[in-house]
This record gives sequence, C-alpha cells and structure tokens, in this order.
Amino acid sequence: MGSKSDLTVMQEAANQLEKLKVPFEMDIVSAHRTPEKMIEYSKNASKRGVKVIIAGAGGAAHLPGMIAASTTLPVIGVPVKSTNSIDGWDSVLSILQMPKGVPVATVALNGAANAAILAGQILALENVKLSERIQSLKKEMVDAVEKMSTSLEKRQ
Amino acid sequence: MGSKSDLTVMQEAANQLEKLKVPFEMDIVSAHRTPEKMIEYSKNASKRGVKVIIAGAGGAAHLPGMIAASTTLPVIGVPVKSTNSIDGWDSVLSILQMPKGVPVATVALNGAANAAILAGQILALENVKLSERIQSLKKEMVDAVEKMSTSLEKRQ
Amino acid sequence: MGSKSDLTVMQEAANQLEKLKVPFEMDIVSAHRTPEKMIEYSKNASKRGVKVIIAGAGGAAHLPGMIAASTTLPVIGVPVKSTNSIDGWDSVLSILQMPKGVPVATVALNGAANAAILAGQILALENVKLSERIQSLKKEMVDAVEKMSTSLEKRQ
Amino acid sequence: MGSKSDLTVMQEAANQLEKLKVPFEMDIVSAHRTPEKMIEYSKNASKRGVKVIIAGAGGAAHLPGMIAASTTLPVIGVPVKSTNSIDGWDSVLSILQMPKGVPVATVALNGAANAAILAGQILALENVKLSERIQSLKKEMVDAVEKMSTSLEKRQ
Amino acid sequence: MGSKSDLTVMQEAANQLEKLKVPFEMDIVSAHRTPEKMIEYSKNASKRGVKVIIAGAGGAAHLPGMIAASTTLPVIGVPVKSTNSIDGWDSVLSILQMPKGVPVATVALNGAANAAILAGQILALENVKLSERIQSLKKEMVDAVEKMSTSLEKRQ
Amino acid sequence: MGSKSDLTVMQEAANQLEKLKVPFEMDIVSAHRTPEKMIEYSKNASKRGVKVIIAGAGGAAHLPGMIAASTTLPVIGVPVKSTNSIDGWDSVLSILQMPKGVPVATVALNGAANAAILAGQILALENVKLSERIQSLKKEMVDAVEKMSTSLEKRQ
Amino acid sequence: MGSKSDLTVMQEAANQLEKLKVPFEMDIVSAHRTPEKMIEYSKNASKRGVKVIIAGAGGAAHLPGMIAASTTLPVIGVPVKSTNSIDGWDSVLSILQMPKGVPVATVALNGAANAAILAGQILALENVKLSERIQSLKKEMVDAVEKMSTSLEKRQ
Amino acid sequence: MGSKSDLTVMQEAANQLEKLKVPFEMDIVSAHRTPEKMIEYSKNASKRGVKVIIAGAGGAAHLPGMIAASTTLPVIGVPVKSTNSIDGWDSVLSILQMPKGVPVATVALNGAANAAILAGQILALENVKLSERIQSLKKEMVDAVEKMSTSLEKRQ
Repeated sequence: MGSKSDLTVMQEAANQLEKLKVPFEMDIVSAHRTPEKMIEYSKNASKRGVKVIIAGAGGAAHLPGMIAASTTLPVIGVPVKSTNSIDGWDSVLSILQMPKGVPVATVALNGAANAAILAGQILALENVKLSERIQSLKKEMVDAVEKMSTSLEKRQ
Repeated sequence: MGSKSDLTVMQEAANQLEKLKVPFEMDIVSAHRTPEKMIEYSKNASKRGVKVIIAGAGGAAHLPGMIAASTTLPVIGVPVKSTNSIDGWDSVLSILQMPKGVPVATVALNGAANAAILAGQILALENVKLSERIQSLKKEMVDAVEKMSTSLEKRQ
Repeated sequence: MGSKSDLTVMQEAANQLEKLKVPFEMDIVSAHRTPEKMIEYSKNASKRGVKVIIAGAGGAAHLPGMIAASTTLPVIGVPVKSTNSIDGWDSVLSILQMPKGVPVATVALNGAANAAILAGQILALENVKLSERIQSLKKEMVDAVEKMSTSLEKRQ
Repeated sequence: MGSKSDLTVMQEAANQLEKLKVPFEMDIVSAHRTPEKMIEYSKNASKRGVKVIIAGAGGAAHLPGMIAASTTLPVIGVPVKSTNSIDGWDSVLSILQMPKGVPVATVALNGAANAAILAGQILALENVKLSERIQSLKKEMVDAVEKMSTSLEKRQ
Repeated sequence: MGSKSDLTVMQEAANQLEKLKVPFEMDIVSAHRTPEKMIEYSKNASKRGVKVIIAGAGGAAHLPGMIAASTTLPVIGVPVKSTNSIDGWDSVLSILQMPKGVPVATVALNGAANAAILAGQILALENVKLSERIQSLKKEMVDAVEKMSTSLEKRQ
Repeated sequence: MGSKSDLTVMQEAANQLEKLKVPFEMDIVSAHRTPEKMIEYSKNASKRGVKVIIAGAGGAAHLPGMIAASTTLPVIGVPVKSTNSIDGWDSVLSILQMPKGVPVATVALNGAANAAILAGQILALENVKLSERIQSLKKEMVDAVEKMSTSLEKRQ
Repeated sequence: MGSKSDLTVMQEAANQLEKLKVPFEMDIVSAHRTPEKMIEYSKNASKRGVKVIIAGAGGAAHLPGMIAASTTLPVIGVPVKSTNSIDGWDSVLSILQMPKGVPVATVALNGAANAAILAGQILALENVKLSERIQSLKKEMVDAVEKMSTSLEKRQ
Repeated sequence: MGSKSDLTVMQEAANQLEKLKVPFEMDIVSAHRTPEKMIEYSKNASKRGVKVIIAGAGGAAHLPGMIAASTTLPVIGVPVKSTNSIDGWDSVLSILQMPKGVPVATVALNGAANAAILAGQILALENVKLSERIQSLKKEMVDAVEKMSTSLEKRQ
C-alpha cells in the first residue's frame, strides 16, 4: 500500500488471505515518495517468488499502475477512498484507466477483500487445495444468504 | 461477450491472445437474454479446461459479474462504451463495483487488449514460454517509445 | 433484496404494501451469491401467482436486471445506496441502463416506498378496491401538503 | 412526448407496441408549454380507458413526473438525450428522482423500446395472448443471440 | 417551496427578504402532490400583485420549472439538497436545464439567500429605496471582508 | 460575452431580444483578458441606463459572477459549452455556484434564448407592452405544440 | 484566500511556508465582494516584491483566475471544498479550466500544503538554501514512509 | 509527453515556448512503458540545467506525478483527452489529486499553451526580458479582445 492511512482498508486483504492460507507479505511502498524503492520492489518481486501483487492507494493513485509498469506479474489495484478524495472517483480512474500494454486488475472502491479473493483465484489455478478453500468460501456465502433468508421469513 | 455489437472492441482481445499464442474460444453469451446458458457456461468452464474468462459488455453490464458468480476462475471484465451509454460510466460501474466475495478484475473502458495481456500474465505464472512472450511484448513497447522519442528528436 | 444490509431501505416497501393491503412475500436472493436460486425464483414466480417483482440492490446491482432476464413479469428496481457505493451512481446505473428487450422499471435512489406504490398502481389496473386505496393515498398526500401549508401560514 | 424532437427516440416505442399488437395513441403534450392540457390529459386518461402512460422527454424532463402527479395509472418515463443535454444526466435525474408518493417507472436513456415492452408486461398480467407475444419476443432474443454465437464460431 | 423539509433551506430567503424590507408570502405548494393548486397559484400570481416567484425544491425538482410554465413573471429556482439526493445533482439539473421559452433563474445549491437578493435586485430596478438597501448590503459585505482581513493581519 | 467564440451561442439571445423589441447592446468583455474594462463596464452599466446584464462564457466562466460583483443590476449567466470544456460542467458550475451576496441568475447550458426571455420577463414587470409580447411568445409556443400534435395525429 | 471560512484549509499553506522559511503575507481578498481591491492587489503584487501568489477559494471559485488575470506572476490555485459545494467539483473546475493565456497552477482539492511546496519549488530555482530545504522535506517523506514500513513489518 | 498521440495537444506548448523565446527540449518518456528512463530523466533534469518540466498525458495519467516524485523542480501537468478517456475526467483527476509533498501544477484539459505560459511566468521571475515578452503576450490578448469587440460593434 502507498501510505499507512490505507491500512484500515488494506487490512481486510490480509485477513482474507490468512483465511485462504495464502502466504503474503505486506509493505508500505510509495509511488510518489519512494519511487525507486517501488521500482526495485516490482522488478525483483518475481525473482523473490512473489506471484501476484495487490496494490492499494487513494487520490491520484499511481502505485498500482507504476508497479504494473515494472513487472509482468499480475497486479491487482484497490482504489482507496482517502480524505480529500473527490468521492473516490480520483483513485478509481487513476487505477482503472491504464494504457494498452500495462493492465491493472481493478476491484471495487475499498474492495480489499475482493482483491485478496481474486489473488486466491489466480493462485488456485495451480493449487487444488486453495481452489477447494475458495469453493468453501463461496459455499459459506451461499449459506450466509440462506440463513439471512430464513431469519427474514421467520420475522414475517 | 454479451452482444455482437461488442465485437469491434473485443476483437482486440482476440488479436492480442493470438499474438501471445494463448489458445482461446470466443462466444456471445448474454446475461440478460440467455441467463441459463451463461450460468451453464460459467459452471462448466473450469471442467472444460478454461483457466481465465474475459467478459466484455456495455450499459448495465452484468455479464462479467454474473459469470464470476458461477465460477471460481478469475474473471476479467471489459467495460464497453455502447451506443446510448452514459459516457461509459454505466458499464464501468456495473462491472467494477462488485460485492465482497465475487471479484471481477476490471480493466479500462474498451480495454480489451489489456484484458488479454492480463489473462496472459495470469497464465504465465506457470508457463515460462508465455512469460517470455509477455516480456517480449513489454520490450516491444519500450522500443516503440524509444523510436517515437528518436523520431521526435529528429523533427526538432 | 440482495442482502440483509438492504433491509433498512427495503422495509419501507413492505410497510407501504401493507398499507395498500397488497399481499407480498419478502426474501433475500443474491444475484452474485445464489444465482441459480435467483433464476429458479424468477422463472417460477409467475406460476406461483406473483404478479410484480420488486428488487432492491446496491453497488454493481445486478439483481433487478437478472430477475428481469428470467421472467416476463414487470420488475421494479430500487437502487440502494450501500456502504462503499460511489455516491449511489453505481446502483442507479447498474439497474437503469438495461439493454433492449429486458426493461427494469427503476425508481429513485433508496425509493423503496415508491416501488411499492408503483406495484400497487400496476395491480390496481384490474383491482378497483386497490385503485381506491391508491387514490386515498394521493388524497392523504394532498391533505398533508395543505396541512403543512396552513401551519406555515400560522407561523408567519 | 414533450416535443417533436423526441420523436426519433419515441418512434421505437410505437414500433414495439405495434409488434406486440398493443393499441396505443401517440401525442405531443408539453409539461412546460401546455401544462393545463397535460394535466387534463393525465386526469382523464384512466376514464378514457388508457391503462399505462409512456412519457419521454429531455433536459429538465418534467413531463413523466408531472403526468404521474395527475393520475394513478402507472407512468413509464423515457429519458431522452436532447441537444444541449449535459450528457443525458439532466433527463435521467429529472425523471428518476421522484419524491415519495409519485413514482415514475424509469427506463434507460433513449430506452423507448424497453418502455413499450414494460408496458406490454404490465398489460400482459391480465392478457394471456399478450403474455404469449412477450414470451415470443424473449424467445426471438434468445434465437438472435444464438445465431450471433453460431456466426461467430464459424468465423473463427 | 415544495415540502416542509425544504424549510430549513428556504427560511434563509425569508430572512434576507425581511432584511431588504421586501414584502413576501411563503407557502408550500407541491408540483407533484398538488399540481392544480400550483398551476392556479402560478396563473393568478401576477393578478394578485406578485412580481417575482422564488421556488425551492429537491430531488427531481419540478416546482420551479412548472411554475415558470404557468406565469410570465420571473421565477427564481433554488436547488435544495434533500435526503437521498444524488449529491444535489438531481435538483440542480432538474431546475437549470429548462427548454427554450420557459427560463428559470437558477441560483446555487441551497442558495436561498441569493434567491432573495436576486429578487431584490429585480424589484430594485423600479424602487430607489430598495436599490439603496441592496447597495448597503453590498457595502456590508465589503466591510465584513475587510474586518476579516484586519483580524487576520493582527493574528499574524 | 467573453470571447468571439461564444457568439454562435449568444447570437440567439440577440435574436430573441429583437423579437421582443427589447433594445440591447452586445459586446465582448473578457473577465480574464480585460478585467478592468469589465469592472468599469459593470460599475457604470446602471448609470448608462442598462437594466439587466446577460453574460455568457465557457470553461472556467468567471464573467457572469465578476460582473455581478461590480453591479447591483440583475445578472443573467449563460453557460457556454466551449471546445475543451469538460462536458459543460465547468461553465455550469463556475456560473451557478456563486457565494452568498452575489447571485447570478443561471440558465441552461447554451440557453442564450432563455436568458433573453428571462431579461424580458424582468423588464416586463414595469412595461405592459413587453408583457404582452412575452405572453404572445408563450401563446406561439402553445400553438407550435398543438400544430406538432395535430401533424403527429395525421401521420398515425 | 477569498473568505475566513477558507482559513482552516489555507492555514496549512502558511505552516508549510514557515517550515520552508519562505517569507509570506496572508490576506482575505474576495473576488466577488472586493473585486477592485483584488485587482489592485494583483496589479501591484510584483512591484511590492511578491514572487508567487497562492489563492484558495471554494464554490464558483473565481479568485485564483481573476488574480491571474491582473498579474504575470505565477498564480497557484487551491480548490477548497466549502459547505454547499457540489462535492468539490465546482471549485476544482472553476480554478482549473482557465482559458488560453491566463494559466492557474491548480493543486488538489484542499491541497494547501502542496500549494506552498510548489511555491517553494518555484522560488528555489534561484535560491540554493531553499532548494536544500525542499530536498530535506523530500528526504523526510522518504524516512516517514520507511518508518511506517518498518513499523508495519514489526506488527506482522 | 507520454506517447506520440499526445503530440497534437502538446505541440501547442512548443509553439508558445518558441513565441516566448524560451529554450526547451521535447521528448517522449512513458511512465508505464519506460519507468526507469523517466526516473533517470527526472533525477538528472536539474543537473542538466532544466528549470521547469511540462508533462502531458492522458487516461490514467501518471507521468506528471511520477516525474514530480523524482525531482524538486516545478512540474506542470497537462491533462490530455485521449481516445477511450472517460470525458477527460481520468487524466484530470490522475494529475491533479497528488498527495501532500508532491505537487503537480495542473492546467486545463488539453491546456498545453497555458502550461508553456505558466512555465514562462515562473522563469520570468528572474528574467526581465522574458517578463516583458509575457507582458506583451497579455497586451496582445487585450488587443485581440478589443478588436473582436470593435468588429462586433460594426456588425450591429
């Protein structure tokens, strides 16, 4: 993530990855304050065994796109609604509208949990156990909806 | 894709996948007109050996999200700017703002080429040859920028 | 509705239907979490005697459109302003901008009461008593405005 | 409709209603230029046997909402993207965001065909033949998608 | 104004008119709930000696435009940011984007005080005393700015 | 107006004023290029017998507001959609959102004809002949709508 | 700044300038309430030794652009999100979208600190000591990011 | 600039700088395709004698902000409205909404000429001749407005 202020949102990604038992590292790397560290990080990520990078940032959110510029690993971008954001539009558009050749897989505003699940889905392509855990997650969601549905019926 | 009218945009994905030598199939499956075919397609995709699904749609673009609802494969969404679109905002927001548990990896408006490259990056995690082809693609882009830069210098 | 979090908004529809003495059922059916249940529900609704479906959802709100895809009953969509919504634009556009052939009768953001009244107006076409109740509702509104007007005059 | 300039868009509603064999009348009634005629029209519509009113207008589009204010018939609003419109947002919001008690069933920008189909769906609740015609329409759409799908396959 | 909920905003207009010693009446007349009363009011206003009408409303705000449709008096529209408004855009666009022939003099979102001052400026064209009061108002503003400026200097 | 490029839009105001036989002068006065001339113009307008000022400008459209800052005459602002405008939002918001004390009577995007009619309505408060001409204008509009309505009926 | 209400935001510019040891004066000059004082201020600024002007304003924010109209000094504009602002869009667009010939160097919404740093960067072109202070500021930011990064690591 | 497609817009900056006799170099440096070249360029610019950097880019426009991240020279950003841009909002917000510590002096959409003039104004702080040229430019604008004004008068 680009700043400690993004932690409230990005923590959800960590929680979700833990639930999926996907090993991960979490760091603060700023596109605008430490651009060279960011490029170093991105260039070496693949060699260090990183498979997918999740990058969250707010405002003129350049971190996801700039990481994507320095690696060929899939990069998932999380638009964060920061203070002084213009309703989140700035981070959404800064992350989504990447030029040809440098995609960022953008998820919903503050959608850190979904970024983690998407990363899980990508890694699950070659990991049967992880695939099963993601399927369990889906099943849990179905059960939750059904439980809500039942509790609503009772209320009526 | 959801309709033949999306073909002009989505063809670019096909071209890019061919360039990357990624085998693919292309079909028209409408969330709103053939919902059951869409669900069947999504549920069986993994069994049929599909690894990543790219879904492009315009307007109230439900196709990418509804496919993601019926599979645990990574789904990449391409917002298409259709006729009568409200400046593309409708398709962007309909694809991007998915609820927790059902991510869609959204790319830029009309960004079909980037969807293909993102799919390539995902598949390249376990495919060295593809990884090299993507790295070549990146190098081509660098060369293209440098060529533009040189031609500009000469002009001055 | 798509999730229990929509209940605060959607309860107003229930209240209004009760007031109009229109029998109804209320359920949680998620387009993204239980797509097949949703399609089953939609396909069978007409046979089960349902006449109009009101569907409320937030964010990338696919529920109203996907229900409309699986039934020929009139479907009324209520855009719900959920947490992390981009000011409600996402749910409004996801519900409103349906393609040719699959209309959703969209009402105002969080406009669940109006969805119920619209349903009442549709059913009243063949139900004189209901028609009278809706006319009473209109009269009540007139009276309320006149009462406000009178109380304002007194204050001056 | 509010003006002859809306005819290009609204003609599609007429075409669709003809296809569904739903009898209709088409008139130009302006909320802003002939407000009393509009109110007369709305108040008497039910007595004259009108069941559903489709109203299309652009810019500060008050016609659908003002008709809804003077009748208890269901009113379907079609936002028209007129010249000097601010990208269609003005007509969409002027029609959609109606206050409690006076719903307008809003369809997509320039979505006149869908307004007609929605009207058909409402009338079909008590008209088996019409219901069958609408189901045929749905089937035609499925066939069209499948035909597109087949022609795409052949091209590959 | 269209509803009692607009009173918080519209009271400022009353205050300002009192300050300018412009006689006025304040009423609640709803475009959507009491359309005929609204038209009667508008048609008779001129005969009753009304010179300028200030109309404030929120959401799909049809009141200012519909009043303007039934009178040739100048109508000043105040967009009110109501609950469930889409950030005020709905009322701004519903009031501003009037078609040719039916202007509404629109002021800023929640700008009721300015509506009163504008009304004062219009009436001052034929009223020297009022003109002087408005000039005093302007002078007061200048003094206020200068006072703020001085207090800021002292703080430095 | 602020620039010759606004003439295409603003000419409509001139045409409309001629039709209403309201004497007027038309000039190009730029807030940004000739600010002192603009202030001189505004300060002296009242003394020179000007009653209402119509100001049209595009982009960051400061002309109407800055004129209003230097006169107590009513100022009508016309947002002009210029080249490189961000869809007209820039001129609309720059003109509309004036602070307390300095109102601008804003009309629709490119609504120069309405600015002229509004000016006419203001002047008609003390001018019976002009008032009659405006009422004729309204009647012409009614006739035009009715003619359109009749021609549509014949077509059916 | 244009009003005392902007002080909360603009104070940050003062703090930052103090930190950079850039001498400055702070005043309230309103484009709309004291236009002539504003023009006098702008015209004389250069003669009085002012090098850069930072102007902050909200709503229809004309101050930065109008100052730029009366001086050839660089003018930095700070859009302030005021009460009744339409999400900040009004001040952003009123400041940013200046016509050819009269640039305003616009910074982020409420970005007063950045306005001060930008002013510092401009003045540092001819001031080695200031340049060093700005480089220290950049280094401080790098250290802050690294400290956040370290504290995050420890937490894991 | 970030791509040859920006040249149509950015050429205007070159023209303006030539007119002001400000020496400049023009290059294509892509944030996303050649990030390291971009950082090298930015870090060395000051040493090479560059005083101000103008960076133009479209879409998710990271170039201006990323250059600003690697230099303490003033950076002027030009949002370019590219193909597939969402009405220019993406480039405007990506350039404008920079975080604290890394300002970009943003000018209007496609405002390359103004970027050049702003650069001239900055350099003119220590360059009397340039200052005079900019004042001539301002005078030319005044003359142009007056000429337009005269030609308009003659037409009347």
